Amino acid sequence: MTRPALKNDTFIRAARREPTPYTPVWMMRQAGRYLPEYRATREKAGDFLSLCKNPELAAEVTIQPIDRFDIDAAILFSDILVVPEAMGMNLSFQVGEGPVFSDPIRTVHDVDRLPVVDAEDKLGYVMAAIKEINARLDGRVPLIGFTGAPWTLATYMIEGGSSKDFANTKRMAFDAPALLDRVIDKVTDNVIDYAKAQVRAGIHVFQIFDTWAGVLDPRLFERYCAAPIQRIVQALEGEVPVTVFAKGCAQHAERLAATGCTVLGLDWTTNLAPIREKVGDKVALQGNMDPSVLYAKPEVIRDEVKRMLEDFGNHPGHIANLGHGIHPGVPPSHAGAFIEAVHEISARMRG
Amino acid sequence: MTRPALKNDTFIRAARREPTPYTPVWMMRQAGRYLPEYRATREKAGDFLSLCKNPELAAEVTIQPIDRFDIDAAILFSDILVVPEAMGMNLSFQVGEGPVFSDPIRTVHDVDRLPVVDAEDKLGYVMAAIKEINARLDGRVPLIGFTGAPWTLATYMIEGGSSKDFANTKRMAFDAPALLDRVIDKVTDNVIDYAKAQVRAGIHVFQIFDTWAGVLDPRLFERYCAAPIQRIVQALEGEVPVTVFAKGCAQHAERLAATGCTVLGLDWTTNLAPIREKVGDKVALQGNMDPSVLYAKPEVIRDEVKRMLEDFGNHPGHIANLGHGIHPGVPPSHAGAFIEAVHEISARMRG
Repeated sequence: MTRPALKNDTFIRAARREPTPYTPVWMMRQAGRYLPEYRATREKAGDFLSLCKNPELAAEVTIQPIDRFDIDAAILFSDILVVPEAMGMNLSFQVGEGPVFSDPIRTVHDVDRLPVVDAEDKLGYVMAAIKEINARLDGRVPLIGFTGAPWTLATYMIEGGSSKDFANTKRMAFDAPALLDRVIDKVTDNVIDYAKAQVRAGIHVFQIFDTWAGVLDPRLFERYCAAPIQRIVQALEGEVPVTVFAKGCAQHAERLAATGCTVLGLDWTTNLAPIREKVGDKVALQGNMDPSVLYAKPEVIRDEVKRMLEDFGNHPGHIANLGHGIHPGVPPSHAGAFIEAVHEISARMRG
Repeated sequence: MTRPALKNDTFIRAARREPTPYTPVWMMRQAGRYLPEYRATREKAGDFLSLCKNPELAAEVTIQPIDRFDIDAAILFSDILVVPEAMGMNLSFQVGEGPVFSDPIRTVHDVDRLPVVDAEDKLGYVMAAIKEINARLDGRVPLIGFTGAPWTLATYMIEGGSSKDFANTKRMAFDAPALLDRVIDKVTDNVIDYAKAQVRAGIHVFQIFDTWAGVLDPRLFERYCAAPIQRIVQALEGEVPVTVFAKGCAQHAERLAATGCTVLGLDWTTNLAPIREKVGDKVALQGNMDPSVLYAKPEVIRDEVKRMLEDFGNHPGHIANLGHGIHPGVPPSHAGAFIEAVHEISARMRG
């Protein structure tokens, strides 16, 4: 374990709903294409997957936003699809098309041949990146590790890539639910091993991203989103704080809080106040400004930050963030205005 | 006015929350590519827009699902984007890309040059189609007219087509809200004139589709979805029942019911029971089976229909439907199994 002591633990204290002098803030996809220094490193690495698999360069891009902005957490640079790739699926990123698995899962045979892999072996480059990041960060801020949630990973594995209506995964859910259960179980086992390996490597916080949970009806949401996430959260009990972010699932906030997670991430389609009233005694909340606000002038960004902070109110347990990843076309100075506004306005609200 | 008296008014009675012997049912996009007879007529018409603009052929495809299945309502075959086209925007449908406006709205000048058009003149082909459909239907079932909601239409007009993150529309919402207000107002004026023309032409019910309202934060939802929809609903007061369907907006059900609409459409991500408890004294509910269920075996379709009907419960005020348009790859026999199951199971529940 190489987890350094933290010089700035505001994020961790807010996650535990302890008072902090200001609201900590980070941005989903903060190490990304909107930063010229990211694009330069990406160029050096070649393709996207090579960047993920190069611990030195992955550490470099992870730390770029920490060097540029006064952010309260770093997030491991990686991709959610490294897990299915480690399970033996052939992954490539096609320009303009997104990720492609050339051998999508369609039959029992396809599922049964998928192994539960030793993450420290097959995903050793992620653990190496975590160690390298911590060595370079030297405790400046906590490091967030992450995974895709089983449902979201399963959609890519079954569709063979991105999808509009998830036809194959949905067909399996309704026509062959036992088969989809097997996929989800297998992925969940792998994710748990992966999460524990990240904890051993030194992450301070673990986040689960369920990007596509919002397309499920309430019964399937329970079966394929909430239940497997709960299994992951329970496997990490006593290890590190766990954040659950299921996009488009504000109506399921109570169920997600009941998974036992430490922090519940929210997108921008909901107000924070009613969610805090419902689940604020169980979890901290993370979010939730529309990332598109960052296209606007800095004055507008400030107004929207103020609205978000006042919506949550002057209580402990808020980690400010966007409601989804930062868009590639945003000027870095606008991201800076967002971070500065969170710190300044929240500090003033405490006073 | 050529609105024929109805032989089957089950839909209308359910919309008014009056008791019916069974639950009426129709399917969004029921006149569509999953039907071989639709594909044949489409072939005859040439491109998609030509089909929309040919009253004889539009009537033909509107009635195809009524001839094939025991459906309780017909819906005008058209496209939501005929309104911006009638306003002078140049619309085309590119194969594999969807709709394209070659001259998207970006400036005040672009907005101010958009007229409020006389729908009976510029959209006369829609009114002609309505009259032709009614002549052929001869009151077998009610005819639903429709429009896209102002927000959804504005996204296409500003983005120039389909979009993933609505960057230009969102930028306008945050950086130039007065400009977006003008777009929305102008579109709303046009939609109201269009709706009234459809009523005069003979529709029995009017539905407003806000396909992209689910990407708005609560403040923008009020300003760009709920308020303009309310203006349209109020303009149609005393005319025909109005259905509001805003996809991905279950959390806003109370606000949408407060627009004064007759029926609230719901997608499949929510259960009907809690929504009925909240707004069932104000509106009927329409929906909400996941359209992907129709990929599954007929037995599974029956089970899911039963679940949906029991979820709503044995109360008046339910119009069964899918939670979004039927997918093009669904076998027509599966659509038939859905409709039959709704009728059979709901009739048994009444007993």
